[in-house]
Amino acid sequence: MKIAVFCSGRGTNLQAIIEAVKCGEIKAEIALVISDNRDAYALVRAKEAGIETLVIEPKDFPTRKDFEKEIIKHLERKKIDLICLAGFMRMLSPDFVQRYRNRILNIHPALLPSFKGTQGVKDALEYGVKITGPTVHFVDEKVDHGPIILQAAVEVRDDDTEETLAERIHQEEHRIYPQAIKLFVEGRLKIEGRRVKILNETNNK
Amino acid sequence: MKIAVFCSGRGTNLQAIIEAVKCGEIKAEIALVISDNRDAYALVRAKEAGIETLVIEPKDFPTRKDFEKEIIKHLERKKIDLICLAGFMRMLSPDFVQRYRNRILNIHPALLPSFKGTQGVKDALEYGVKITGPTVHFVDEKVDHGPIILQAAVEVRDDDTEETLAERIHQEEHRIYPQAIKLFVEGRLKIEGRRVKILNETNNK
Repeated sequence: MKIAVFCSGRGTNLQAIIEAVKCGEIKAEIALVISDNRDAYALVRAKEAGIETLVIEPKDFPTRKDFEKEIIKHLERKKIDLICLAGFMRMLSPDFVQRYRNRILNIHPALLPSFKGTQGVKDALEYGVKITGPTVHFVDEKVDHGPIILQAAVEVRDDDTEETLAERIHQEEHRIYPQAIKLFVEGRLKIEGRRVKILNETNNK
Repeated sequence: MKIAVFCSGRGTNLQAIIEAVKCGEIKAEIALVISDNRDAYALVRAKEAGIETLVIEPKDFPTRKDFEKEIIKHLERKKIDLICLAGFMRMLSPDFVQRYRNRILNIHPALLPSFKGTQGVKDALEYGVKITGPTVHFVDEKVDHGPIILQAAVEVRDDDTEETLAERIHQEEHRIYPQAIKLFVEGRLKIEGRRVKILNETNNK
């Protein structure tokens, strides 16, 4: 199975996925890392791991459709089975999502459906929740909305700042994102409406 | 310190509070249990514990204002310091909330701000979250909205029904609601905007 990881930034989740592949936990190949930002440090990580990288920047295309067409061309060239968004700061179009229906995963730094959007950690902290944590979910046409695969609980401490809280959430992200990808690759995720059930290793038919 | 508990139903959280008072964990008196429903089993539990009970039903009053006036009369008669809503299925008016500002607690069976309203367990299950759990919060003018005191994480299992999930959430409710009341009674809750900080036993000045 071939995976493409889409990144815009530091790529710490990419790093966690790279390591899970390297140690054999995820039995698949990361065939491509695509960034919409040529300065993303994720590109350095990918190159260091010997993974093909592509910078595809929206500004180089007249429309989003053309931008995504370019992405799709490379996904097809590499015969990609699974797309993992890892800090990819861009909405995919409904057409794109439909083409890769149930084959795009995303990670969000809050317990969805709470605190959607780009400030999941900050918003949770300001709201004053005592429990937050990351969510791995399938991507559908709406922002941070598709069926949930895994979540992890992170306690908010009284003295937390956005930075200290984000740090503990990221630790959990790096644990559950590779775990969710492993389950996908092993064919153990069964979507029933909005619920995602996890099949045992023995009955994954 | 004197506590009034408002109930509409079975009163399992009331029971947990009664027991925490009885064993000395909460150093306060439950001086009054008020129900808006004469058939609430909570009334039986209160009587068995030797607590004064009152049935105050909205249908016996021309307006909500009159209904609440009757409640307030008894709260003042008993010199109540803290109101704990425990399965009380009725909105309190902004006037009432203002009168007892930061002295009304509520428990909700979901991780607020997710799944507000009367079907917090069912809605969480249908949404497909993997982590849910109860929230104890101060009551403000909006439904299920005030500053959060404590939350607990409960894992949703693939084979959960509303009943099995509710059962595990209730267990956590019965643990964190008395704990939150204890913190209130000991003067250890400090509200800063939307965040509630918990003071140590030693620095609760």
